[in-house]
Order: sequence, then C-alpha cells, then structure tokens
Amino acid sequence: MIDLVLVGAGTGHPDHLTLQGVRALQEADLVLLPRKGAGKEDLAHLRLAMLARHRPGGLVAEVDLPVRDQDLPYLQGVELWHDAIAAAWEAAVRAALPEGGTVAMLVWGDPSLYDSSLRIAARVGWPAKVVPGITAVQALCAAHVIPLNSVGNEVLITTGRRLREGGFPADADRVVVMLDGECSFRALAPEGLFIWWGAYLGMGEEMLDMGPLAEAGARIFEARARARAAHGWIMDCYLLARTA
Amino acid sequence: MIDLVLVGAGTGHPDHLTLQGVRALQEADLVLLPRKGAGKEDLAHLRLAMLARHRPGGLVAEVDLPVRDQDLPYLQGVELWHDAIAAAWEAAVRAALPEGGTVAMLVWGDPSLYDSSLRIAARVGWPAKVVPGITAVQALCAAHVIPLNSVGNEVLITTGRRLREGGFPADADRVVVMLDGECSFRALAPEGLFIWWGAYLGMGEEMLDMGPLAEAGARIFEARARARAAHGWIMDCYLLARTA
Ligand SMILES: C[S@@+](CC[C@H](N)C(=O)[O-])C[C@H]1O[C@@H](n2cnc3c(N)ncnc32)[C@H](O)[C@@H]1O
Ligand SMILES: C[S@@+](CC[C@H](N)C(=O)[O-])C[C@H]1O[C@@H](n2cnc3c(N)ncnc32)[C@H](O)[C@@H]1O
Repeated sequence: MIDLVLVGAGTGHPDHLTLQGVRALQEADLVLLPRKGAGKEDLAHLRLAMLARHRPGGLVAEVDLPVRDQDLPYLQGVELWHDAIAAAWEAAVRAALPEGGTVAMLVWGDPSLYDSSLRIAARVGWPAKVVPGITAVQALCAAHVIPLNSVGNEVLITTGRRLREGGFPADADRVVVMLDGECSFRALAPEGLFIWWGAYLGMGEEMLDMGPLAEAGARIFEARARARAAHGWIMDCYLLARTA
Repeated sequence: MIDLVLVGAGTGHPDHLTLQGVRALQEADLVLLPRKGAGKEDLAHLRLAMLARHRPGGLVAEVDLPVRDQDLPYLQGVELWHDAIAAAWEAAVRAALPEGGTVAMLVWGDPSLYDSSLRIAARVGWPAKVVPGITAVQALCAAHVIPLNSVGNEVLITTGRRLREGGFPADADRVVVMLDGECSFRALAPEGLFIWWGAYLGMGEEMLDMGPLAEAGARIFEARARARAAHGWIMDCYLLARTA
C-alpha cells in the first residue's frame, strides 16, 4: 500500500537538495515530517522551507517523535525507541493516506550515513527507496575547499565515542569524526595531527576553523561551547590528518 | 582574474546534480569541459546534457587532457601529468575568457573524493570554491537501500590497491572499495564477509549484486568482465561488511 522514499536533504543549505530530491518530493502523495522537539527548530524550518518551495500546498503529515528512554542500556533503549518511532510513522501515514500511496521523508544529509530512517522503515515493512543527499562529510570538505583523502590513501569515518575509546588509529592517515558532542579530539596526543573543523555547515551560522591540532584544538573547543550556548544546539564534525 | 567553482556532478544520473550545482553552472562565465579521451564518451555525454539543460547556449571551453606517462614511477608521473593538465586548463581559459571571470567545472561525484581537480586548481593558482555532489559511495548505498555504517560503528573508504596489499583490515566493520580495476575482493578470505556491489551507479546501465562474498564474488567477477567488454569501460565500487 505504502511506498517510502527517503530523500537526502543535505546538511542545512536549501540548495543541497538534488534535482532527484526535488522530483521525489513533488511526486509523493504525502510528505511525512517528523518533529524532533526542542532545539531542533532550525532543522524543522529548513524542511518546511524546502516543502514550501518545491511542493507548495502538498499534503504533509507532521509526526511528534517519541523520546528515547535514557535509563535503559543504550542499544536496548534504541531498539524500543525505533519501535515507537515506527509505530508513530505508521499511525500518521495511515491517518493521512488511508488509501495508501507514496510517502516521502526528508532525511538530514544522506540516509545512509549515521541515520536510522532505513532501519525504522524496515520495521514498518514499507518498501523503501533512497534518493542520495549531500553528507556533512562533503559539506565539510567543500567549505574548507580540501580533498577528503590524501592521494591514493584511505579515509576512516568514525564517531566521537570511538575516537575517545580507541584514539587516533595507528594506521590511519585521515579520519572524519561525526556525532561528537564533546570535542573528543581533546583525548588525542595532538602532535603531528591537523584538524579541519566545521559547524552548522551549509547554514547561515556556518563556522570553520583549521590548524595544527595542538593550536586549533583549544580554540575550537571554546568557539564550539560559545556557539552552542548562543544557538541552543550545534552540529559539528571534523577531519583529522596526520602531518608529515 | 579567474575564480574557479568545482561542481560535484554526481555519479551518472543527471538529477544527482544539486540545486546549488545548477546555480553555479548558470552563474559561471565559462564552463571548462575536459575531454578524457577514449572510452569515457558516456561520461562526457552526461556533462554535455547537463549543460544543454541548465545552461543552454552558455560559453563552454573544451580541453583535451594530456595523458599520464606510464613509464615514469607512479607518483612522479602523476605530478608531471597534473602540471600538464594545469597548463591545459590555463591555456583554454585564457583563450575563452581573456578578461577573466568565473569558471565552473563539473567534477565526477564529489570533488573531495579521489579526485585531483582541487590539486590541479592549486597548481594554476586560481581561488577555488566547491559545490558538493553525490559520491559513488552514496549512490551505492542508495541503489541497495542500505546504511553505509552499522549502528554507531565506523566505515573505512579505501582503494582496490590498498585492499589487495593490506587485506580486510583486522579491526574494520565496514569497508568501501573504490578505484578497483580488478575485483580485489578476490584477494580476501571470503568467509564472514558480505558484499554489496554496484557498477554504472545512477546510469541506465546500472548493475547491482550482493551476497556472502564466498558466493557472490565469482558471480560479480564474471558479470563485471562481461559488462566491461560490452561497454568498453566500467566504473564500479562495493561495500564489504563483516557478518557475525
Ligand atoms: C545523526 S548524524 C547524521 C548525518 C547525516 N545523515 C549526514 O549524511 O551527514 C549527525 C551528525 O552529522 C554531522 N552533521 C550533520 N549536519 C551537520 C552540519 N550542518 N554541520 C556540521 N556537522 C553536521 C554532525 O557530526 C552530527 O553529529
Ligand atoms: C577517480 S574516483 C572518483 C570518485 C568520485 N569523485 C566520487 O565522488 O564518487 C572513481 C571511482 O569512483 C567509483 N565510481 C564513480 N562513479 C561510479 C559509478 N557511477 N558507479 C560505480 N562506481 C563509481 C569507482 O570506484 C571509480 O573507480
């Protein structure tokens, strides 16, 4: 009855959207719009602006997302939370589109990267398609006008937690760090590392910094804390490279 | 005099282009269009179709790219080759845009990933901007409707050569392999590995396969050889995951 299209929305710039994404929004019978709650208003605004521009007057179902139970062990909490989100999606779509049809959802960045929409869609059992979108990794490199990889070498994409726990991998040349709420680069010995950092990439508030980690690290930590306090939220990521 | 904008064109689907990319093409005074020579005609067609659609009648300078001297040691050959490309770009732009202005170039995928345009631009000395584009990595995941990472885990992006030389990294969970002319997964012990493979991603010729590496590996190797023979060229990449 229901076909789902997950549309990569890019990371904050309304023109990160691809032509394929525009078309998917226009062709959908319904756009499902999760509301993530406090502090994420700017992100919700972006989605609404995209819909107003590319799909004016089109059918939209907003859905309030349940919150994760922070008292449960992490993975168990996530499982139950995804179940609850799946149920919320299903109820919202059933109400708005009782006859079935195509449902599009705007997913932050690209649906393949550190995002659970595909796993939730699998729970609901709707056949899903994906329209790829610009990730924070590409937005970071574009903003700094740098290559992600050094010539012919590999790149590791990881999380703040893993960087804290494992350090800078011994054999790594370049490491992208996402989902890092606490500037985990501070846990590294900074010698011989260079950092390119970006927050609010693609948005009006975009912030960039770069330099040898030994110099830039403290500066970024402070700037991040100030920006987070000022805006009430922050999204940032960074690329670390071994120098020499 | 010259400002360069490298526009990520996506990996073969004309609608991979972002709205930002469309605008950059439209606002440029000149689009520089490298001709890569034999076997790459399909790729050149895609670029021409994008220009015809988004920038009809706009000024375009085609430039024949020099070829790399295969007799030199690899890195030295690349250095000289990039020098020669930089000189070719400069001559073509000087001829087409003697007063200076903004020059756009369509770069395959995203300019940050295994692409030398930024390094060549640095040689010419033109200030460059980047408009991010859909990479083969995202096109692969979108086509298979899969996440790139397993929950909270890291992803390594690497090349066929490095996979052959180093094997499947002992601590890796998921590995994306690009720039692999020879199905380097054949060098791995296939037990406990799963592969999602894609060729001509985003294009009409798109091919997909997936399965436990022990079963899918030989099948992919043969399908790839047949497709390459039929089309005269191929571009493919794959994601490997450790299972259980
Ligand atoms: C849940 S993940 C989603 C990633 C997204 N699917 C993508 O493709 O980029 C969120 C993380 O992405 C990064 N991120 C997303 N948008 C960003 C932005 N505009 N600026 C900086 N980092 C961003 C941050 O590291 C953040 O913690
Ligand atoms: C020189 S790299 C350029 C990568 C590009 N900048 C990107 O962002 O995807 C070329 C490699 O990308 C991968 N690739 C690019 N386009 C592809 C496509 N349409 N289908 C499959 N693989 C592709 C292949 O692994 C190929 O060897």
